[in-house]
Amino acid sequence: MSLYIEPIERLSEQFRRLPGVGKKSAVRMAFAVLELSSDDAKAFADAIIDAKSSVHMCSVCGNMTDGDVCAICADEERDRSVICVVEDSRDVVALERVREYNGLYHVLGGVISPMAGKSPSDLTIDMLLRRVADGTVREVIIATNPNVEGETTAMYISKLITPLGVKTSRLAYGIPVGGDLEYADEVTLNRALEGRREI
Amino acid sequence: MSLYIEPIERLSEQFRRLPGVGKKSAVRMAFAVLELSSDDAKAFADAIIDAKSSVHMCSVCGNMTDGDVCAICADEERDRSVICVVEDSRDVVALERVREYNGLYHVLGGVISPMAGKSPSDLTIDMLLRRVADGTVREVIIATNPNVEGETTAMYISKLITPLGVKTSRLAYGIPVGGDLEYADEVTLNRALEGRREI
Repeated sequence: MSLYIEPIERLSEQFRRLPGVGKKSAVRMAFAVLELSSDDAKAFADAIIDAKSSVHMCSVCGNMTDGDVCAICADEERDRSVICVVEDSRDVVALERVREYNGLYHVLGGVISPMAGKSPSDLTIDMLLRRVADGTVREVIIATNPNVEGETTAMYISKLITPLGVKTSRLAYGIPVGGDLEYADEVTLNRALEGRREI
Repeated sequence: MSLYIEPIERLSEQFRRLPGVGKKSAVRMAFAVLELSSDDAKAFADAIIDAKSSVHMCSVCGNMTDGDVCAICADEERDRSVICVVEDSRDVVALERVREYNGLYHVLGGVISPMAGKSPSDLTIDMLLRRVADGTVREVIIATNPNVEGETTAMYISKLITPLGVKTSRLAYGIPVGGDLEYADEVTLNRALEGRREI
């Protein structure tokens, strides 16, 4: 027998799918939803459906967008000769927060990881190579996370780009090794950008 | 300028309304929703709407139910001569987990708290008095939380019930003072039930 009535159990299970939410937190969240007004509960449900249906990959860089091309790719002021390659859209936000980098991005959608069943063909590497091949790109900064999978992916991409006559660089190890780009502070990220080295 | 695109910002804001969810966690949760399949995202949204629309107060005891009368009130095996009064439905679950108590419950829907603008008329006290007046009830155990508001509410209810010739008791102070009933362990709750004293 379950402890709570079925609609509450079912809603708790949904909250438990979210990162960092345990059993007790999930139940508290379900009860919090019951305390919302009907309009607010509907707004919550709609926000889930809307985000899921309207957000997709930018057709140029793989970043998340609700338009055809993301705001960064569409921005005429950005330096189109540099592309910074990151694992996911949250890393773009982390780097944008520094307000130092004015180039474009390329979002891989993950890293090469045999453990997680991710091979190069699951990432947007082909899209990246097509962008690099068009002649305007001078440098590709590979800002994958500083861990085994991130390094492997950086080396893999670098080996494909270098023959095209485009410089590849890697963020400096200002980022704590084994850490997560998303949680790095602005100063550390800025140092890492300044100290980037050619691969 | 917001850091994330609008649908993600909007979904994050919804998650931030939940207890214990900060800004970063909310963003992580929003991104986790984007990684769900469309069917799973729909199931999540539906669970919110369903819980909000199907869950309401038991017409007898004020507990949460998706039927007319909650499972405990409907259960013929329960001892109808004892009513345990609690603040909310989660407290019912906490006490049910002990598997010692076989009486009925009454869910107040809060406690008397001038600070939070809750007066006795905002609680289900009238419903409780009607239940007690019908003659089958022998004892009312007042299991509000052991803090100032909980004690005040217990005294208030006790003063209304004692003239009706029904015994009122309070959970023993096995529960840590200032604590929250919902987080008490089974053994502590059991001690508290056994050691209840007449008011």
